[in-house]
Amino acid sequence: MEFLADCRARMALDLLANTWHGVVLWALRHGPERPVTLRTRIGGISDKALAETLRRLEHHGLVTRRRYREAPPRVEYALTPLGESLLGPLEALGEWADRHGDAVMAAQERVS
Amino acid sequence: MEFLADCRARMALDLLANTWHGVVLWALRHGPERPVTLRTRIGGISDKALAETLRRLEHHGLVTRRRYREAPPRVEYALTPLGESLLGPLEALGEWADRHGDAVMAAQERVS
Repeated sequence: MEFLADCRARMALDLLANTWHGVVLWALRHGPERPVTLRTRIGGISDKALAETLRRLEHHGLVTRRRYREAPPRVEYALTPLGESLLGPLEALGEWADRHGDAVMAAQERVS
Repeated sequence: MEFLADCRARMALDLLANTWHGVVLWALRHGPERPVTLRTRIGGISDKALAETLRRLEHHGLVTRRRYREAPPRVEYALTPLGESLLGPLEALGEWADRHGDAVMAAQERVS
């Protein structure tokens, strides 16, 4: 595995090069959600940023949009199987953060 | 593990929110390197972008800079133990890309 010349590996890093991508994928891990629920659960994300993130994740094939013909129309987003497959690496990153996050924050305070 | 309200987990995503961070950490996995070697090996990164990336990784405590008093002075960068601890999650991401990268690129072509 090579992050350097290999464009697939760089693509994976590009996918996470927007912080919201990982956060929104993670927020969808238990099943389909409405945007309003996602926004509340995530916190600190604007409607616009959430809508753009969902659109990009859909473009990458990680998320699908479902529209239900109700009044008012209900829209939900869900992980695709491809999106679900990214939960493992995200979990590895989260575990790393649990274990080493304090050390990173201590380093940041020391240098600045 | 929670990416949502937990600031440590978000910090981990922020760390990778710059594509070069992961690429440069990965390029240092075998040991200390001079900037010129890193730049050649990575490809497509400017001197300026590489210097800024290394400075930020140093700020986060993931990389150290070593200066040798030679003529001309030699500078090398190396992973700290904290930086090495991030190789595992990066590898998980790289393996995901190996397995699923083609599917993501196919999705991108389909939608756009």
